[in-house]
Amino acid sequence: MEGARVERPLLAVGAYVVEDMLGAFIPGTIIHRAPRSEGLLSGLSFAAKDLFDVAGAITGCGNPDWAATHERANADAWAVDALLSAGATLLGKTVTDEISLGLLGINRFYGTPLNPRAPDRVPGGSSSGSAAAVAGGLVDVALGTDSGGSVRIPASFCGLYGLRPTHGRISTEGMMTQAPSFDTVGYFTDNATTFGGVGAVLIEEQIVDGLPDEIIVASDCLALADEPVRHALLPVLDRLRCIVRCSEIRLADSELTEWSRHQRVLQKSEFRATFRDWIDRVNPRFSAEVAGAFADDGRMSESDIAVAKEFRAGAAQRLDRLLDGRRMLCLPTSPILPIGRDARLSEMRTAVHRIVDLTCIAGLTGCPQVTLPVAAVGVVPVGLSLIGWRGGDAALIGAACAIARDLSIGVLQERP
Amino acid sequence: MEGARVERPLLAVGAYVVEDMLGAFIPGTIIHRAPRSEGLLSGLSFAAKDLFDVAGAITGCGNPDWAATHERANADAWAVDALLSAGATLLGKTVTDEISLGLLGINRFYGTPLNPRAPDRVPGGSSSGSAAAVAGGLVDVALGTDSGGSVRIPASFCGLYGLRPTHGRISTEGMMTQAPSFDTVGYFTDNATTFGGVGAVLIEEQIVDGLPDEIIVASDCLALADEPVRHALLPVLDRLRCIVRCSEIRLADSELTEWSRHQRVLQKSEFRATFRDWIDRVNPRFSAEVAGAFADDGRMSESDIAVAKEFRAGAAQRLDRLLDGRRMLCLPTSPILPIGRDARLSEMRTAVHRIVDLTCIAGLTGCPQVTLPVAAVGVVPVGLSLIGWRGGDAALIGAACAIARDLSIGVLQERP
Repeated sequence: MEGARVERPLLAVGAYVVEDMLGAFIPGTIIHRAPRSEGLLSGLSFAAKDLFDVAGAITGCGNPDWAATHERANADAWAVDALLSAGATLLGKTVTDEISLGLLGINRFYGTPLNPRAPDRVPGGSSSGSAAAVAGGLVDVALGTDSGGSVRIPASFCGLYGLRPTHGRISTEGMMTQAPSFDTVGYFTDNATTFGGVGAVLIEEQIVDGLPDEIIVASDCLALADEPVRHALLPVLDRLRCIVRCSEIRLADSELTEWSRHQRVLQKSEFRATFRDWIDRVNPRFSAEVAGAFADDGRMSESDIAVAKEFRAGAAQRLDRLLDGRRMLCLPTSPILPIGRDARLSEMRTAVHRIVDLTCIAGLTGCPQVTLPVAAVGVVPVGLSLIGWRGGDAALIGAACAIARDLSIGVLQERP
Repeated sequence: MEGARVERPLLAVGAYVVEDMLGAFIPGTIIHRAPRSEGLLSGLSFAAKDLFDVAGAITGCGNPDWAATHERANADAWAVDALLSAGATLLGKTVTDEISLGLLGINRFYGTPLNPRAPDRVPGGSSSGSAAAVAGGLVDVALGTDSGGSVRIPASFCGLYGLRPTHGRISTEGMMTQAPSFDTVGYFTDNATTFGGVGAVLIEEQIVDGLPDEIIVASDCLALADEPVRHALLPVLDRLRCIVRCSEIRLADSELTEWSRHQRVLQKSEFRATFRDWIDRVNPRFSAEVAGAFADDGRMSESDIAVAKEFRAGAAQRLDRLLDGRRMLCLPTSPILPIGRDARLSEMRTAVHRIVDLTCIAGLTGCPQVTLPVAAVGVVPVGLSLIGWRGGDAALIGAACAIARDLSIGVLQERP
């Protein structure tokens, strides 16, 4: 993984403070922590979403009342420590949707980070600042978390590589819990080489560039996407067919919206349990968007949860059989382009609803997913995703690197 | 109304800024507006809840995102103008529960004003700062608004006189709308003389001290009150029986909770309509308490609303017949003592629910209500209420003044 040593000089930390015109960092959290040792990531800088503990700093989770009611962390999160130990330099903590609830990157307390690729559109969330910091060149790598799409969506919206690993594959130690059976540690880079290098460190396996036996295009996932998204991805799929055997299936027995309904039920029931006592104790302030996630408590029954759990087991089994340690599933990362920064709440809610129709697949099954910045509509990035088999994170990252090389990603992206 | 001219020298405005240790005023809104002319209220100072327009100031309604999305008012609200024209001096705008939704006086953005009579307990709301400012001696009079109890409850909790007038009796021009068929302009004073004087100005009628033909004690309302509240009020009722003919009835056919359920349905359906577009446009920040008021949208049907409207018409008719232009209904203002400032959200919600069981009576029927600071449990004030006949505001205020005189209120209140 020699290639991961990107020789980009670090700017002085002071310069980052001044230059964070993206609103990517939580104000006052520019930290600068030197690497613990030389390693695979020496010379690289990184940022951590404000859901990760950094010793001595408050893990604020994007909400001032969370920050005000929690103590300073006394140890680094596992993922932060892993990057520092591999030679990377930590530069700061990044803005996130409040307590990680959101997929658009909107934060009414710390500001919505700028999407450097599409400044009038949302950056995606909840790992919004991490994506903005990488896309804007402030850092080489950024850690995010992904429970319902929080790495994949900002990666897609900001034109980045992003990983959601197999559930349980990367330690979540020292990371804020949201919905334990969905929570994962993910990361962003703006190039495949660094993507592979960081993957090797976090997965603790060698990453070998290489394609799977077969890529299965999920036709119903593609059909869910808006016309401009589909139109941007179809030529990429054509090129993909030139380098790897591709087939097509319809993933859902009936509708994908059935999958997302069950994801919503399970994730909500978990994050409500996570935050219930804190909310009762603190009466915290939330944006109306986030407050809405706690709004329809009465409508979720125990039997809804039981049905969703059964569905989830079946979905996981279906994907395990389909991918079988040698195939990968291909789908749009998001069915929509990032919405405008000035969107109404109702438009935001519709957007999130639609996004979860696709992000729920890896969410429910626990399988790993990478998103690649393969296309654009005008200047607006469009990500393409591969879902790998359970535990096949290294192969999935390797496939992303191979596709990036073979399709010369970067050339593909339209520039204004 | 010669007696209303309380000769208390105004402190310099600067002193008020320094001395607002109660957190009663919205920071930066200390205004000092000189009276327009000499009048009945000359020599008196007043404050206005931040729901009232004051020309040149933003009407912030207790929520920073409301303030940020509204322009400065270009005219004074009718009630502000009325007091200025009667000789009173405006000193500032007071903290309110966000967009007037709340009965406890808790505000997570501007701070919860101190209850000067019971510093470890909530001041009551939503006209919290107005009550605190009067109870703490910062002003002689304060304007509040009362849709679901927002003058009556803080008056009761802070040991003050408070009026909710007949619905429609005092102009709400220049006041933030919450739930139009419930919204009223009310006010606070700490003595009966000033209470009468301000009433004369706002009701635009002469106030004559005097008792009604009969006072009807609502036994089911009394039974709803916690034991300490009942225990504090019973001796007052005994003394009341010595000065006026008293009888007893059970107000509700079945349960008072039926009344409050209908109040909640109607008030919610109105305030949701009021704020819907603003929330959708702004995605404002709310405390979890206030966000909860918008939370169970799905559970309120058109038929619930129709049933509630029919019930309300019947309740109004029942009270009109019962009071018949000569009787007044007597009840505890609140069934509970003010809860602790550090209460949990669940305790807050239970408290509000119980309070509305009693405040809904005037709310649903539109009849006027006064609360008098007749008793205390230790240092904690307990208010007693009279509900008057529709349009009988002057007689109701006159009755409050007569009772204050005849029962020597003030002497009654236990001091620590």
